Amino acid sequence: MKIAKNILKISFEKRVDYSLIFCEDVFDETKNILNFDMGSKRFIIVDSFIADKYHDKIHKYLAKFTSNYKIIPVEAGELNKNIDTFLYIARELAEFDVDRRNEPIIVIGGGVLMDVGNFVASCYRRGVPHISIPTTLMGYVDASVGIKTGINLDRHKNRLGTFDSPQFVYLDRSFLKTLPKRHIINGTGEIVKIALIKNAKLFEYLESFGKNAIDSNFQNEESSYILNQSIIDIVEELEPNLFEDNLERCVDFGHTFSLPFEMIKESPLLHGEAVAVDIAYSACLALVRNHISENQLQRIFNLMQCLGLPCFHPNITSEILWESVQERINHRSGFQRIPLPQGLGKCIFANDVTKKEIDSSLNLLRNVMYH
Amino acid sequence: MKIAKNILKISFEKRVDYSLIFCEDVFDETKNILNFDMGSKRFIIVDSFIADKYHDKIHKYLAKFTSNYKIIPVEAGELNKNIDTFLYIARELAEFDVDRRNEPIIVIGGGVLMDVGNFVASCYRRGVPHISIPTTLMGYVDASVGIKTGINLDRHKNRLGTFDSPQFVYLDRSFLKTLPKRHIINGTGEIVKIALIKNAKLFEYLESFGKNAIDSNFQNEESSYILNQSIIDIVEELEPNLFEDNLERCVDFGHTFSLPFEMIKESPLLHGEAVAVDIAYSACLALVRNHISENQLQRIFNLMQCLGLPCFHPNITSEILWESVQERINHRSGFQRIPLPQGLGKCIFANDVTKKEIDSSLNLLRNVMYH
Repeated sequence: MKIAKNILKISFEKRVDYSLIFCEDVFDETKNILNFDMGSKRFIIVDSFIADKYHDKIHKYLAKFTSNYKIIPVEAGELNKNIDTFLYIARELAEFDVDRRNEPIIVIGGGVLMDVGNFVASCYRRGVPHISIPTTLMGYVDASVGIKTGINLDRHKNRLGTFDSPQFVYLDRSFLKTLPKRHIINGTGEIVKIALIKNAKLFEYLESFGKNAIDSNFQNEESSYILNQSIIDIVEELEPNLFEDNLERCVDFGHTFSLPFEMIKESPLLHGEAVAVDIAYSACLALVRNHISENQLQRIFNLMQCLGLPCFHPNITSEILWESVQERINHRSGFQRIPLPQGLGKCIFANDVTKKEIDSSLNLLRNVMYH
Repeated sequence: MKIAKNILKISFEKRVDYSLIFCEDVFDETKNILNFDMGSKRFIIVDSFIADKYHDKIHKYLAKFTSNYKIIPVEAGELNKNIDTFLYIARELAEFDVDRRNEPIIVIGGGVLMDVGNFVASCYRRGVPHISIPTTLMGYVDASVGIKTGINLDRHKNRLGTFDSPQFVYLDRSFLKTLPKRHIINGTGEIVKIALIKNAKLFEYLESFGKNAIDSNFQNEESSYILNQSIIDIVEELEPNLFEDNLERCVDFGHTFSLPFEMIKESPLLHGEAVAVDIAYSACLALVRNHISENQLQRIFNLMQCLGLPCFHPNITSEILWESVQERINHRSGFQRIPLPQGLGKCIFANDVTKKEIDSSLNLLRNVMYH
């Protein structure tokens, strides 16, 4: 506390620590990977699909370590990422209750469920510990790595949320074995993002081995390198800027124009699909602004199409793109700060993209797709 | 980032800084105390009573610096400290929207409104800057000093919330001039709390000058000392422990048994009134456990009665008190950690209060009140 002429200044340094733990078969009851204290209470939020599929295994594991647990199956999906789901979980949690420090909430599921579940945990008693077990590729390489939580507020994507780190994230890629292909490809969107903007070697590796990795549901040898390298690259970007004090974030690449496509009522794109459409469009914008060559643009499209990622959406219009830029200006505090690829594997930020460039890039995208 | 055998560790130090600014006549439009950038947008959450009473003054002030502002009057009171009020404010904010960093939300009101308004600000886009202007004594000496935000979840008091500091708090005691006496006395509950647990000199000062301070609505000379010293004492306790890493908090004195009395549907006590009842009961418990003398107990009751603070509530029962202890054990992670006065001006924590002591203390309280 400093007191100077009518002003009392208060300062505090808060330390954030968490760990990503690579493991195999997290619910193997002979191990206790989740580090249960015997008898301690556990509140578990699970994607309803996973709750069905791994029902016996999860219950057997939990029952071995405690009789005092409650599993809440939750239907995930973008349209359930809302205040109703938040309140449903919060009320169940309030009825069950947990110790404020020693009985971490467990969230088992994909990116959406992690966002909602961690938001509840971060608000319950102003924050209780929570651990994440991602069961989708999106959860594995993206949602569980950072500290963002959130829900949509009506038509406003991720408008309510917090920054709050999990205690532990258990990365068990065996969940990916039976993940539907659409969700495998969905997660690949974020892997292409980080490769294109930050790691040329990973980009080339994806050109050679990405398709095989997808075919193996990320179980083959090459997948290990792809998964580990993506996570390391993302953490390298996130860690020094966890609370986004710097709003020029290269990990925001693919997240400038993507939001409306996840909010389409009839058939919303998955997060990684919307990011892929944004990457394709942003690559065109990068060409229009002379940051990449035609050959590089072609390689980007070739890779994305080879991986099965969408590069276009019928709803894409000049108006929607321009509105997204305006919305991002509010979110990025007064500047566009649009991350674009500079060649393959580097990032540059644009602050002066014009409506005319937005239009030319859209024409270019249409040309590349339908020439 | 540290990588060790299958574990990736992530760490970050986040700095929290904010200032309490003592000022006079904050809405004097000749000054610009609130530091407006000309033309910048402002979203303002105001207690509806204050919105009426200071309507012209607030509008005149705002209009001088920007044409782009929106005032949301909100009915405060414990029963409105809920998810509906939270969502009402959040939706109005989403429609108006603000820059994520440079257009702070302004909250003008008492403790309840500050808790709800700051909770919205702390979740909107995962946290936008906000400033507080307390208009009640409770807001002035308590709610605006710390970084707790929150709402009640059904019958669960403050069950959802965050830790999030304001940027600035403007402490303008001229608002207290016309504050209804009940609300003046309400804030005094927190002043007695900090005095009794931490500052014997302030306690004695209250014995001499507390009643006059209340009579003057905290406008007289002696009030300055009382207000400033209370805030300094509270900040001294809060600052090293802003996020409650240590759950033994002497500022929790008066907040162990108080919660149910604020949640009574028909005629809830105000926060400071409930704290006062808790202080009176806790003082009896302190005597039962030999931490204070009979003479000291008498001085505590004399002071509280002289200040007009309630020391009893007809709903107080042995069961409710014991339930509160159980609930606090969850909140204080496995231990009671009940702060009690040790003599006048010091604090001791109890972890082994028995049901029998709870009962004896209640009998003692009844005796003191109705002998």
